[in-house]
Amino acid sequence: MGKIYVVGMGPGKEKYMTFEAKEALDNSDIIIGYTVYVDLLREKYKDKELLTTGMRQEVDRCELCLSKAKDGKTVSLVCSGDAGVYGMASLMLQIARNDQDIEIEVVAGVTAALSGGAVLGAPLGHDFCVISLSNLLTPWELIEKRLKSAAVGDFCIAIYNPSSKSRPDHLKKACEILAEDIESTRPCGIVRNIGREEQSFTVCTLGELSEIETDMFTTVFIGNSKSEIINERLVTPRGYVEHEK
Amino acid sequence: MGKIYVVGMGPGKEKYMTFEAKEALDNSDIIIGYTVYVDLLREKYKDKELLTTGMRQEVDRCELCLSKAKDGKTVSLVCSGDAGVYGMASLMLQIARNDQDIEIEVVAGVTAALSGGAVLGAPLGHDFCVISLSNLLTPWELIEKRLKSAAVGDFCIAIYNPSSKSRPDHLKKACEILAEDIESTRPCGIVRNIGREEQSFTVCTLGELSEIETDMFTTVFIGNSKSEIINERLVTPRGYVEHEK
Repeated sequence: MGKIYVVGMGPGKEKYMTFEAKEALDNSDIIIGYTVYVDLLREKYKDKELLTTGMRQEVDRCELCLSKAKDGKTVSLVCSGDAGVYGMASLMLQIARNDQDIEIEVVAGVTAALSGGAVLGAPLGHDFCVISLSNLLTPWELIEKRLKSAAVGDFCIAIYNPSSKSRPDHLKKACEILAEDIESTRPCGIVRNIGREEQSFTVCTLGELSEIETDMFTTVFIGNSKSEIINERLVTPRGYVEHEK
Repeated sequence: MGKIYVVGMGPGKEKYMTFEAKEALDNSDIIIGYTVYVDLLREKYKDKELLTTGMRQEVDRCELCLSKAKDGKTVSLVCSGDAGVYGMASLMLQIARNDQDIEIEVVAGVTAALSGGAVLGAPLGHDFCVISLSNLLTPWELIEKRLKSAAVGDFCIAIYNPSSKSRPDHLKKACEILAEDIESTRPCGIVRNIGREEQSFTVCTLGELSEIETDMFTTVFIGNSKSEIINERLVTPRGYVEHEK
């Protein structure tokens, strides 16, 4: 019987992968994923079978992995960022629920909250939430409730999928909800194209954030009540006790 | 002028580091950190200067990095997990706030929410919170408020520092707060000693969780209202829309 690795590749380039992720790819007969991510591996793994499925073909992708594993192959299903956070690990485990003889190993990777956080400084230095504004699979009312809860709980917040062509105003709407509980001067930041050549970042206030244009390649960060901008970086202290000065 | 890397090493062994983290260590003249983490690197980097400070000596550690960087050295300040999430990146940026000529580069790593999540399956497949139960630097009332907010928002939750010798009952208290909004049968899980030889994991219900003994090397996961146990793994679906069956 074969084996399936679900591999988090981090934000893009090979240098952001873990050694464990590379080991899983090296050990695999077949690498399967969304076209864009598999293309990143094409040069390095030209001797392996590389299979791609398009965007939103996630169920097909997992079924393809399962079918290849049943044929005795070792398969890596690759995801950007982490394998679990909005990744393919949960769907793969669901689809293979009746195939307990297929081993599924999840290989963690650096999700955008962490890779983008590092670019910005240290926005997630204390308790934090990660919230996606994509309402493809989640009712918008629930997203609103989570934004509200995150603001009330004084969490640092990392926002994924802040907007897209089909929903250009999601971040603006999210900022309006957050602004019910968070002052407009709250330090925030955005990172675009994490880990790519065009990577860039900006710090701003919550008030300014709602006017910033973002896309699917932008990750947004909202500080907590103790966050500050230090030398153009967004920094959230590790604690609320002022012991460190 | 020198440079400081703040490097997230992931959960322990070298295989869980990113290539970027290893590159930072390779490029450094000096590696500085808490004794336990630096000891992991002693064999590999015997030609470098390795300096350690004890637990809770975080300010001293950052000041040591700054002083070495001012002497023109390239320094890696190492942290377990990620560099930003309850890590040293924010304190380092604070302490160097008046030294803008010292470059500080934060190198992300795999935090326990992700590495532990991979061991358990995919507990963080949708919006999630990370909350530490350590009240060393955070008032307990704020921790309670965050737990409450996370439960009300139907987030998946990763809990760090669930208990320690000096506060053995924190996880039990946290479960009582969560139980005000979450049913006692909610799927949960714990992972012990992530990335070490003794690594182990268990799935359970919220009701059972409050009776489980944990320590500083345990990470706890609470599913959201859609999470389920599949073949002894904790799985949170990527969405609320049942399109995937």
